[in-house]
Formats: sequence, structure tokens, C-alpha cells
Amino acid sequence: MDRIKVGVVGATGYSGAELVRLLLSHPGVELVFATSEQQAGKSLRQALPHLGGPHDLRLQLRPLDPAALAGEAEVVFLCLPHGVSMDAVEVFLEGGCRVIDLGADFRFRDPAVYKAWYAKPHARPDLLSEAVYGLPELHRNLLSGPGAGTAPGTRARLVANPGCYPTGAILALAPLVTRGLIERNTIIVDSKSGVSGGGRAPKLDFHFPECNENIKAYRVGRHQHTPEIEQELSRLSAEPVTLTFTPHLVPMTRGILTVAYGTLARPLDTRGILACFREDYRAEPFIRVLDQEEFPETKHVAGTNRCHLGARVDTRTGRVVVVTAIDNLLKGAAGQAVQNLNVLLGLPETTGLAGLQAYWP
Amino acid sequence: MDRIKVGVVGATGYSGAELVRLLLSHPGVELVFATSEQQAGKSLRQALPHLGGPHDLRLQLRPLDPAALAGEAEVVFLCLPHGVSMDAVEVFLEGGCRVIDLGADFRFRDPAVYKAWYAKPHARPDLLSEAVYGLPELHRNLLSGPGAGTAPGTRARLVANPGCYPTGAILALAPLVTRGLIERNTIIVDSKSGVSGGGRAPKLDFHFPECNENIKAYRVGRHQHTPEIEQELSRLSAEPVTLTFTPHLVPMTRGILTVAYGTLARPLDTRGILACFREDYRAEPFIRVLDQEEFPETKHVAGTNRCHLGARVDTRTGRVVVVTAIDNLLKGAAGQAVQNLNVLLGLPETTGLAGLQAYWP
Amino acid sequence: MDRIKVGVVGATGYSGAELVRLLLSHPGVELVFATSEQQAGKSLRQALPHLGGPHDLRLQLRPLDPAALAGEAEVVFLCLPHGVSMDAVEVFLEGGCRVIDLGADFRFRDPAVYKAWYAKPHARPDLLSEAVYGLPELHRNLLSGPGAGTAPGTRARLVANPGCYPTGAILALAPLVTRGLIERNTIIVDSKSGVSGGGRAPKLDFHFPECNENIKAYRVGRHQHTPEIEQELSRLSAEPVTLTFTPHLVPMTRGILTVAYGTLARPLDTRGILACFREDYRAEPFIRVLDQEEFPETKHVAGTNRCHLGARVDTRTGRVVVVTAIDNLLKGAAGQAVQNLNVLLGLPETTGLAGLQAYWP
Amino acid sequence: MDRIKVGVVGATGYSGAELVRLLLSHPGVELVFATSEQQAGKSLRQALPHLGGPHDLRLQLRPLDPAALAGEAEVVFLCLPHGVSMDAVEVFLEGGCRVIDLGADFRFRDPAVYKAWYAKPHARPDLLSEAVYGLPELHRNLLSGPGAGTAPGTRARLVANPGCYPTGAILALAPLVTRGLIERNTIIVDSKSGVSGGGRAPKLDFHFPECNENIKAYRVGRHQHTPEIEQELSRLSAEPVTLTFTPHLVPMTRGILTVAYGTLARPLDTRGILACFREDYRAEPFIRVLDQEEFPETKHVAGTNRCHLGARVDTRTGRVVVVTAIDNLLKGAAGQAVQNLNVLLGLPETTGLAGLQAYWP
Repeated sequence: MDRIKVGVVGATGYSGAELVRLLLSHPGVELVFATSEQQAGKSLRQALPHLGGPHDLRLQLRPLDPAALAGEAEVVFLCLPHGVSMDAVEVFLEGGCRVIDLGADFRFRDPAVYKAWYAKPHARPDLLSEAVYGLPELHRNLLSGPGAGTAPGTRARLVANPGCYPTGAILALAPLVTRGLIERNTIIVDSKSGVSGGGRAPKLDFHFPECNENIKAYRVGRHQHTPEIEQELSRLSAEPVTLTFTPHLVPMTRGILTVAYGTLARPLDTRGILACFREDYRAEPFIRVLDQEEFPETKHVAGTNRCHLGARVDTRTGRVVVVTAIDNLLKGAAGQAVQNLNVLLGLPETTGLAGLQAYWP
Repeated sequence: MDRIKVGVVGATGYSGAELVRLLLSHPGVELVFATSEQQAGKSLRQALPHLGGPHDLRLQLRPLDPAALAGEAEVVFLCLPHGVSMDAVEVFLEGGCRVIDLGADFRFRDPAVYKAWYAKPHARPDLLSEAVYGLPELHRNLLSGPGAGTAPGTRARLVANPGCYPTGAILALAPLVTRGLIERNTIIVDSKSGVSGGGRAPKLDFHFPECNENIKAYRVGRHQHTPEIEQELSRLSAEPVTLTFTPHLVPMTRGILTVAYGTLARPLDTRGILACFREDYRAEPFIRVLDQEEFPETKHVAGTNRCHLGARVDTRTGRVVVVTAIDNLLKGAAGQAVQNLNVLLGLPETTGLAGLQAYWP
Repeated sequence: MDRIKVGVVGATGYSGAELVRLLLSHPGVELVFATSEQQAGKSLRQALPHLGGPHDLRLQLRPLDPAALAGEAEVVFLCLPHGVSMDAVEVFLEGGCRVIDLGADFRFRDPAVYKAWYAKPHARPDLLSEAVYGLPELHRNLLSGPGAGTAPGTRARLVANPGCYPTGAILALAPLVTRGLIERNTIIVDSKSGVSGGGRAPKLDFHFPECNENIKAYRVGRHQHTPEIEQELSRLSAEPVTLTFTPHLVPMTRGILTVAYGTLARPLDTRGILACFREDYRAEPFIRVLDQEEFPETKHVAGTNRCHLGARVDTRTGRVVVVTAIDNLLKGAAGQAVQNLNVLLGLPETTGLAGLQAYWP
Repeated sequence: MDRIKVGVVGATGYSGAELVRLLLSHPGVELVFATSEQQAGKSLRQALPHLGGPHDLRLQLRPLDPAALAGEAEVVFLCLPHGVSMDAVEVFLEGGCRVIDLGADFRFRDPAVYKAWYAKPHARPDLLSEAVYGLPELHRNLLSGPGAGTAPGTRARLVANPGCYPTGAILALAPLVTRGLIERNTIIVDSKSGVSGGGRAPKLDFHFPECNENIKAYRVGRHQHTPEIEQELSRLSAEPVTLTFTPHLVPMTRGILTVAYGTLARPLDTRGILACFREDYRAEPFIRVLDQEEFPETKHVAGTNRCHLGARVDTRTGRVVVVTAIDNLLKGAAGQAVQNLNVLLGLPETTGLAGLQAYWP
């Protein structure tokens, strides 16, 4: 099989660097370009000295010039700050590329939601209906199949890769919401993220002495990932879902632990809840449903594209508690982007991802 | 004023070592004994090499022999594993000491609750009614005043120092529960603790390579601090409070961040919620209510006896979110024990505690 | 090619778990047994929940019974506490296995050195002359070729996998000592290790609150890895090498940074020193010699079998400073053991190792 | 006694914030101003939310205007970037203030050294001869006594507070160099610092995901603290001392561990070496010489102004190894500055410092 040519825009941020790493060892693709504004001119080996292995690391980083780059790759990954993707997307799409955007710009169906939570109007609302929310466990068919994109029978042109928090939260709740097992207005999502989720640009919040030996909640009740979780859960529910979301910054580099709470709509025990998850996720290569009284730890999934999931019914209060752990840079970003790529290309979904092994200890 | 003679049982665990540190610089007391089973015979200076300052560190650690020790001190602090305090308490009380127990054995009014959550029957249920739950912000009068202990007019003989998680949770919720502002069966408490909360005995869970760069939830829905929080909130409420509690282990040494959620019983905005906290906590020397859109960080309180508190109404969902931060070893253990001591002795509540300064950065 | 059957003794310690991980994805071998005293009966999936990927994780951990196990594998890896390997080695060798011992028992040629530094007599001094010190960069020929083991033409039967510190130190110094470029009695090795180097058994030294936010030197001038470094450098030198070695415990999980100092025997600049390293290590797949003014970081090699090396001549003092970084569990233990396996089996040395990617960020 | 009026320039960096904390509880001084360019207008309470205690935190941060501020305080502490102090110093001195400069600008006696290591000419070489290198354990007399400053009988006007690394290194070596016990050209200093040593300005090097779970050496053989250590040791020695210095960045917030190596000029055992340290440091309130086979840990001194010191003679190599631990922000910066202040003011040297207690665990 010919390798598909792919490019990465923003290759020296954390998500971009992870994408480069994954794509270099992906048997179905060839990385033909990688961009970096600050490090253009350096080779991958110079800019990302942790990379190694049998790969050719001489590829030189380039500045972002969508018009020039569009002709070189069939699939382009965008790792750009929110709000910046909009323009680049257009040029790449017009140049015939498929685009997998790791930013937030195309995750919403409703431009008003984008405007409300990102504090600016959407520049390309026309593309929102075309974009597919790339959580393969939910939207595999939209990505690859007849329902995707502009016309029946075509594959998606524009994939909006989910946010890191939404990935952990939606996977924790989808089987329950779909079945109507939890009262839809009782959902609370309390998530804890490693610092790499804040990106690679130095800021006081992520300065080692400030966040080491510290934990804090931030943007309580107003984090921009809230509507993303709500949108996807609402699609699975008979009625709109509104929820409370609290993210935290934890003194570790990688990983998100999400704890989701909801009041059961009807009596069910832990065994029954876990059975629902097993049913829905049985064939999912990246989801592991744990046994009763087992709960996930971020360290067991760091470095992988997996999501570990545990659940328990608190019979005293009639609530279910679901816990998921993911690696925010992999299943929460670059790994999921490659999973989306595989679906787009019709490859086995684990291609280039199955070999990832956890960073343990 | 003569210094009151005090002793610490279990002085080389984390809570005990903190107590020793605080008591050495407390102007109202004299530390006359400190015990350690494993390090008996060593001096404080040898066993706790971080101690310094102008203090005499030659005091020699002794093995625990309540009968022998009871005559030496007027107040004894017990830092013993749960279930072990029961016997020691009896001997010290009979020897005429007042006891401040940092363990869980005397925190419950109902021995059936103890049995249900600690998996063994209580050995001294008769003492439970006498013991005062030592959260001074709630029970100052019981500790010092006419209502305390066995008879009017006496001070408490036996103080059950609160658990670390309950301290953060109860302070987050008491003003709201007292006023009936949240629907009493909608409360969820999601807490994140540093590893020192697990004590000093080496265990795999707290082995550096296992918990570094990792976060996990544990004892989901069945942690033994749950009924302690419920007991105290129920005392403030017209009807019993039942809640869901999830503790987490965070890769840092000190600190607990607690996020408490509840559905508002009537419409109220963030300003109104904060006004309630300010009203109740105005005179509290160790509670700082933050401004709107400010939320606490554990690093701002580590090393102190303070509790920082922030809150926000999530108007979209009708819920209030309250966040507290404490140092689990101080306001969550040794600091609060000294605060209780001060109340017992009729000293200003900040004696020996006001000078504590935060471990920042 | 038929896969070679291999077994791992002590599979739930850190080195053993890493070996299991590497061997499961090694194309030339089949893992036929793995032992664990404490977790015998559990499957790999249960005991090591971080493992995943496409592998079959149903293999059940067994207790150590060398006589029974010897017949099942052609190569056995021993991850046992120092002093315990001696007996197991004998049984496995007699059963016809080749043994790669990750412990210290067979690293010394002189049993008197073992006794002096490990405080007990060696039980099998007869095997010491047969054992090959498995640092492939130095002793590849002894492992695979005519010079190895008891008779010309055979491959080594018993490989003593180097200690973690010695690996980093010897690689830093071998090219210089071989060439007589540093005065042989001026060498100082100052190493800094992550906590996983202390193993998985919980101890107070490795208890999170004790070693987090802390650094200390330990066993100053008397660490048992000292004679191991000296033995290997002395083999490369005209005269015996004696040196000062100081290890440190650093608050991170993985990685060793080694800084080696020596006085230059004749004037040479940084460029000249680096040229020596490049010459010797040009064909080494796991050693990367950095450019001038570049120095290694453990984070760039964590998760890999690589050693990064930087050097600088301090012309003011006439000293050379060489810095190496390795992952203590990989190039310092399990990865190097697999590298040795590959040499033994005549496989390309990077088999099963080239795909390892760094844990960054 | 009237409180002396003091001011802090650069009060929201780490050293400045620590100074503010110390000065607020110092019984001999009154903090009359504190400056911050970025946070001018905020109160101490707003800008430094970790501060608490009984202190008045309403003092408002001001922009730096030396001419206006000089008249307000008798002693001014400068916490400014290197190279920036020079100008401010002049104005404050002319305004009649004494200045304690925490930067490097006035640490060197020879302007050529400054120029060589700081890559720019010194703007005020005339002041270098007046400035006193403020390591009280060495230069107490110069600070307070007849030999200090411009004229006999006066106290120092300008104190150059030592660098963090030099403090740990000089204290480790001074008694040995003074006595000629180590061959003066065999000294190697290998130091390991927490990240707060890099200051509070966000940079990629100190971005949490970059330095967490990582250790590296930096500026090998060319760190600007090298000549500072050499200058002070040379003053104690018959002949100039030149040495090799290697600093490291360790994934913790506070603390410096320094290991100093030197070849003994004559045979001496560990007991003899420790006796020298005990003799010189017997009366030092902030230095604790440990027993044989005890070595310091940064965690035992973090939060204090202490230096712990251990040593061992490596009889095999004829070398002595000395290890010191300090808190880089206290004994390595703000604490030492207050110690200098006390000497200047003729106060007991522990004033405002004795009560500091270690950040343990």
C-alpha cells in the first residue's frame, strides 16, 4: 500500500510533538511536512531531542504557509491555538486536503455556542455543519461512512478532534445517557488534569514552582469544554443535557482523571452499570472497563491511547459515580487524532497506536 | 502564667511530628513527653532532624505507657492508628488528663455508625456522648463552655479532632446547610489529598514511583470520612444529610482541596453565597473567604492552619460550587488540635498558630 | 524463525515488569513464564494493569521453582534481590538455560571484591570467571563470540547485567580511559538517580512524602556500584583505576544523570574529546553523542534504551566533564538485558528496542 | 527600641516575596515600602495570597522610583535582575540608605571578573571595593565592625548578598581551605538546585512539563557563580583557588544540595575533618554539622535559614567529600539577607529567623 502523505502544523507544541512521534512510526503514512513558527529551519532531531528510534529525523521544520503546504499532503493535522485554525482550515480544505483539527474551532454545531464560550464570533459557521466531531467511539460512522461530510458516501473532510476533558467525560457518560439511566440534569463532572494540558507556552500558572506541590480548581463553572460535553451528551439524549463542570490543575505532567456523578433514573447496582459499559465498549480497542471496586489511575494509561473506566453505584444516595483515566496528550489529543485518521483512511483503528505502552512506573 | 504540661503520643508520624513542632514554639505549654514505639530512646533532634530553631531538642522519645505517662501531663494528644486510641484514652482520662485524640475513635455520636464504617464494634461507646467533635468553628462552645462534656460549666475532657477531609468539607458546607440554602440530598463532595494524608508507614500506594505522576480516586462512595461529614452537617440541618464523597490521591505531599456541590434550594447568586460565608466566618481567625472568581490553592495554605474558601453559583444548572483548601497536617490535623487546645485552655485561639507561614513557593 | 522461549523471574518488580513489557513485543521471543512470589496466581493483566497493546496478557504469574521452570525456557532473566540470584542461577544453568542476571551477584571477577562490598562471601566463585559483564558496547564479543564463556566458539551462558549507575558511568569514561586521556586517579563520578532505582518494595526512604521535594546524597564513598565501575575501567586501562563515587536520590521516578570528572593527561579541547566519543560510539545504536554545549537530560531518554552523552573541557582547570543520561530501568536494567539477549541470540541488537519512544513531556 | 524602616525592591519575585514574609515578622524592622513593576497598586494580600498571620497586609505595592523611595527607609533590599541593581544602588546610597543587594552586581572585588563572567563592563567599579560580600560566617566583622565600608568604625553601606550556589559551596569548603587541608587545585563542586532558583519569570526551562520528572546539568564549567566561589576561597587560601563547578536543575521547588570534592593535602580521617567544621562552626547559629555517616537532605532545611553539613573522607582515594544543604531562597537569598541586616543593625543574628521551621514533610 502506498503511504498516505500527512503533515503536522504546529509540530513543537506538546500535541504536535506527540503527533510527529506517532506518525513517524505509523505504517500507513509518511510525514511530509511539519511546521513550527519559532523553530523553523531546525530538524526534528534538533527541535525534539527526545525523538529517536529507527526514524529519519532530518525532516526540517517549516513556517506555516497553508497555500504552499496544501499541495503536499493528503491529510493535515492542525495543532494551533484556538481561533487560529479557522483560517488555515479553509486554505487546506480548498487545496484538497482532509483536515484533522486538534483545536476547538470546529467542535460546535451551533456558532452561537462557540461565540458564547470563546468570546468571539465564528469566522466560518458554514463549515460547522460539515465538520465531524471526532470521537470515534460515538461517531465512527460519520467519519468514514455514508453519513459523513457534504455528501452521502464520502468520508469526512474536516474532523474536529475532541477536547481532552470532553473525551474523558463523554466516554464516562455516553452509555448511561443513551439509555436514560441518569436524570439528565443531575450530572456533575469533576476533572483533574496534568499540566501538559495547558500547552507548552510558558506561563506563570504552569511555572514549576507555582504548580508543583499544588492543586487548584480553575474556571469553575465556566470552562469552555463544558458546552462540548453538553453538546455530545445532548445528541444522545432525548432532551438537552446541562451539567456542572470543574477542571483542576494537578502537579503531574500527563493524564486526566474524570469523575462523573449522576442520579440514577431507576434503581441499578454497580454490576448493572458496568454491564452497560461492557456492552457498549466490548469491541472498542481503546477502552478498558474495569472490574467492580477497581478504579482507573492515570499512570496506567499515560503513554497510551487507552481509556480506563471504573464505576460504582452509591446506593446510599442513589447516585452513580463513573471514573475515567486518559492520557490528555494521546487519547485526549494526538492519539485520538491518529485514531480518527485511521477511520478516515479505512485502516484498522489501532494502526500505529496498538504498540504504545504505558509510562509506568 | 505557668505553662501547661502536655504530651504527644505517636510523635514520629506526620501528625505527631507536626504537633511536636507546634508545641515546642507554643508559649502556653511545655512539652513534657513524646512517645514513639520505633524510635524510643532517640532524642527529638535525632528522630526529627528537620526540627531546629531556638528549642531544646534533647527530649528523649519514650515508649507508650499510658499509666506511667498520665501523671506527667495535663493534656495529652493521641496520634495513634484508628482503633488503638480507645484503650489509651481510658487510661489517660482516668489519670486526670484531658485528651485530644487525632484518630477517628471518638468522632461519632452513634456507635453503630462507627461499627458500620470501621468494621468493628466500639470498645467504649459510653465515652462517645462525652467526646466533643473538635471543629472549633462549629463547636467552640462545647469545647470550652458550659455545654461541654459531662457537666455544665466544665471544659471538655475528651476532644475528637476531626478528620482531614471532613474539616475541608464541613467548613465548605456548614453555612449553606445551616441556612437551608441547598437541597440536602444533592450534596457531592469531591476531595483531593496530598500523600502525607496516608501517614508515614511505607506502603505500596504511597511508594514514590507508584504515586508520583499519578492521580486516582479511591474508596469511591465508601470512605470512612463520609459519615463524619454527614453527622456534622446533619446536626446543622433540619433533616439528616446524606451525601456522596470521593477522595483522591494527588502527587504532592501536603494539602487537601475540596470541591462541594449542591443544588440551591432557592435562587441566589455568587455574591449572595459569599455573603453568607463572610457573615459566619467574619470573626474566624483561620478562615479566609476569597473574592468572586477567586479560588483557593493548596499552596497558599500549606504550612498554615488556614482554610481558604471560594464559591460560585453555576446559574446554568442552579448549583453552588464551594472550594476549600487546607493543609491536611495542620488545619486537617495537628494545627486544629492546637486550636482545640487553645480553646480548652482559654487561650486566644491563634496562640502558637498565628506565626505559621505558608510553604510558598 | 522460531521464537525463543524466555522466562522472567521476579516479574512484578520494576525491572521485571519492564522486561515483561519489552519481551511481549519482542519479535524473536516468546514469554513462557513469569514469576512473582507475592502475586502468583494473578494474570499479567491483573498484576500489571498498565500493560496493554495487542498482547495476550492472560499468562499467569507463578511462584519461583527453578527446577520446574528450567525446562521451559531457553533464556531466563533473573530480577532477584542481590544475594538471592546465586542459588537460582545454578539450577537454571544446570537445566540448560542461559541466564541473564539483573542482580549484582555475578558482576565481579574477584570474589574478594564481592565480599568486601556486599558483606558476604560469594557462594559460587567458580562461576565468576564464566560470567560475562553484559555491557554490549564493551563486551559484545565476549557475549556472542569465540571468546565468551567456558570454551571458544560458544556463546555466554551467564550474563551479569550491569548495575544502573555503572552503565552510565562506564559509558561516560570508557573512551577516555582506553586512550589514557585522563589521569587515572583523578576520576570522580557524581550520579543522580530517580526513585525507581530503589526498587518496588516500600521503604521509608522511598515513601512519597519523604523523597518528594527532596534531594540527598547517600552511601557517600561506599556505594556497592563503585567497584563495578572500577573493575570495568581498570580492564580498559594500563593500571588499576580507583575513583570516588557519590549517588543521589532525586525526586523523580526514572532516569540517571551521571557527571564524570577527570583531569586531562594531556591538553585537549572539547571538540577533541567529543571526537573520541564519536569515534568509539559511531556504530552504537543506543548511544547519542551530543554537540558542543549540548548536555543530556534524563527526560529525553526516559522510556528508551538510549544513552545521551555530552562533554566539555573546563580549560580553566584542565578537567574534562562528561555527562550521560539513561533510563535506569531500561538502559540501566531491562532494556540492556534485552540488548544482551539480542547479542546472545545473534539478532540485530535493536530488536524489540528500537521502537521504544521517550516519555516526553 | 524603634523599629528600623526597611524597603524591598522587587517584592513579588521569589526572593522578594520571602523577604517580605520575613520582614513582616521581624521584631526589629518596619516594612515601609515594597515595589513591583507588574503588580504595582495591588496590596500585599492581593499579590501574595499565601501571606497571612497577624500581619497587616494592606501595604500597597509601588513602582520602583529610587529617588522617591530613598528617603523612606534606612535599609533597602534589592531583588532585581543582574545588571539592573547597579543604577538603583547608587541612588539609594546617595539618599542615605544602606543597601543589601541580592543580585550579583557587587559581589566581585575585581571588575574584570564581573565583565568576564557577566559579559558586560561594570558600571560602578568604584563601589566594588566598598561593598562587603555578605556571608556572615566569613565576613561578620566586615559587615559590622571597624574594617567595614569606607571608613574605620562604620558599618557597611553596601552588602552584596551571596549567590545561592556560592553560599552552599563556600560553607562546605572554607574550613578546609583555610587550614590548607585540601590541595587547592583539586576542588570540584557539583550542586543541585530546585527550580525556584531560576526565578519567577516564566521560561521554557522552568515550565512544569519540561522540568518535572527530569534532571539536567547546565552551564557546565561556565556558570557565573564559579568566580564567586573562587574569589571567596582564594581570600582564605595562600594561593588562588580555581575549581570546576557544575550546577543542576532538579525537579523540586526549593533547596540546593552541594557536594564538594577535594584531595587531602595530608592524611586525615572523617572524624578529623568533622572536627575542623565543628571548631569553626561551633558558634554559628545557622550551621549544623552532622555526625559521621549522616548526610544532609534539602528537606530538613527547606523553610529555614540553616545549612546542614556532612562530610566523609574517602580513604581509598584520599579525597574528602563535603555535602551541604540549604534552602536556596532563605540561606541562599532572603534569609541570609536578613541575617546580614541583623549584623548591620547590631541585632542578635537570629532575630526574625530563629522561628523559621522546616517544610517537612
